[in-house]
Amino acid sequence: MDVTEAITTLRSMRRLKPDPVSDELVQKVLEAAIHAASGGNQQAWAFVVVRDAEKKRKIAEWYRDGLRLLFESGYGEPRPGDPAPTPEQEAAGERTRRSAQYLADHMAEAPVLIFACLIGDPSGETRHNARSGSSIYPAVQNLMLAARAEGLGTTLTTIHSFHDDEVKELLGIPSHVLTAAMIPMGWPMGRFGAGPRRPVREVTHIDEWGHPPNW
Amino acid sequence: MDVTEAITTLRSMRRLKPDPVSDELVQKVLEAAIHAASGGNQQAWAFVVVRDAEKKRKIAEWYRDGLRLLFESGYGEPRPGDPAPTPEQEAAGERTRRSAQYLADHMAEAPVLIFACLIGDPSGETRHNARSGSSIYPAVQNLMLAARAEGLGTTLTTIHSFHDDEVKELLGIPSHVLTAAMIPMGWPMGRFGAGPRRPVREVTHIDEWGHPPNW
Repeated sequence: MDVTEAITTLRSMRRLKPDPVSDELVQKVLEAAIHAASGGNQQAWAFVVVRDAEKKRKIAEWYRDGLRLLFESGYGEPRPGDPAPTPEQEAAGERTRRSAQYLADHMAEAPVLIFACLIGDPSGETRHNARSGSSIYPAVQNLMLAARAEGLGTTLTTIHSFHDDEVKELLGIPSHVLTAAMIPMGWPMGRFGAGPRRPVREVTHIDEWGHPPNW
Repeated sequence: MDVTEAITTLRSMRRLKPDPVSDELVQKVLEAAIHAASGGNQQAWAFVVVRDAEKKRKIAEWYRDGLRLLFESGYGEPRPGDPAPTPEQEAAGERTRRSAQYLADHMAEAPVLIFACLIGDPSGETRHNARSGSSIYPAVQNLMLAARAEGLGTTLTTIHSFHDDEVKELLGIPSHVLTAAMIPMGWPMGRFGAGPRRPVREVTHIDEWGHPPNW
């Protein structure tokens, strides 16, 4: 598949069929992941592939509770001072919420859950910061693009982090390892395609903040 | 270009020719960037494209100093308890350091520097954390893959952050906006290709940490 097609049609696929995904395909998407760059090429990453039904069931339960807590926190609602959302934005938001709820309700049925982890300093002296993700999320994007090319649906989610301690205990993940992302993967029910996006022009600044491009 | 080829040959290109890069190509790689997913599809990103010679010169100066500070901090050297690096790892590390120094010494000659930014809460109540990068680095990876497909070299670096306040003041970037990554982009002197990586098997755990795959 052409790289532009993969990039522009990589929609988050939250409705997945329970049909199995082979080890060969898991291996293939992880092979794409590890080709990403990482700070100083340290490759301080680890991928925990969860197929065990009972573990998926527990993770699904914590995930569903995490989503409930997220929705209760007012996530995604306009903040004071934000412009009122357009009807289209309202509708898109509602669709995303429904689809997130679907994922949470059916998480245990996804054939594979992949945790993309970032290994930190075991002494705990250097903590991860807001830029640490530069050494793991490029790998996650590679993984999802490679899955897309195979027709496999994925979503990058971090909502497991509401019950991070429980997830890590269940999977035996050491405390200095960050569960940066959880990626449910499977054959999608829906179709790939571009999601709604603000145009490039609106998010680009030339040489100085607030100077839009003249193209 | 095939997505697998783009992913597997996207090496960090730190030696760039000063030859110009058109606005059309800048637009094209940013178009790939904004197709990435972001938390709640908030698209809280901004891309600051720096072409101004004087601004590039100042950023290059701060960057060079940042690299000096990074090297002085012992970055990339084995930590107590780490296994001694193999001669191959030593050589690879030395090559990366030389190439990082080249980039720092020639930064101002890169035709374009792109800052990929993540817009935070203006009230400052919610701070970015280690997982915030899940809403910006996938976009950065898309950008770099799209550049690769055009034959353009890029590197994801965060070393500008040693002088982040100065960079933000120079470019007028508001305080609640994180300069998540700086991406110098230009026509590469070297050739694209795969970098050295640990095999997938060594970084994969099945159902539990420490359980390698049987494939």
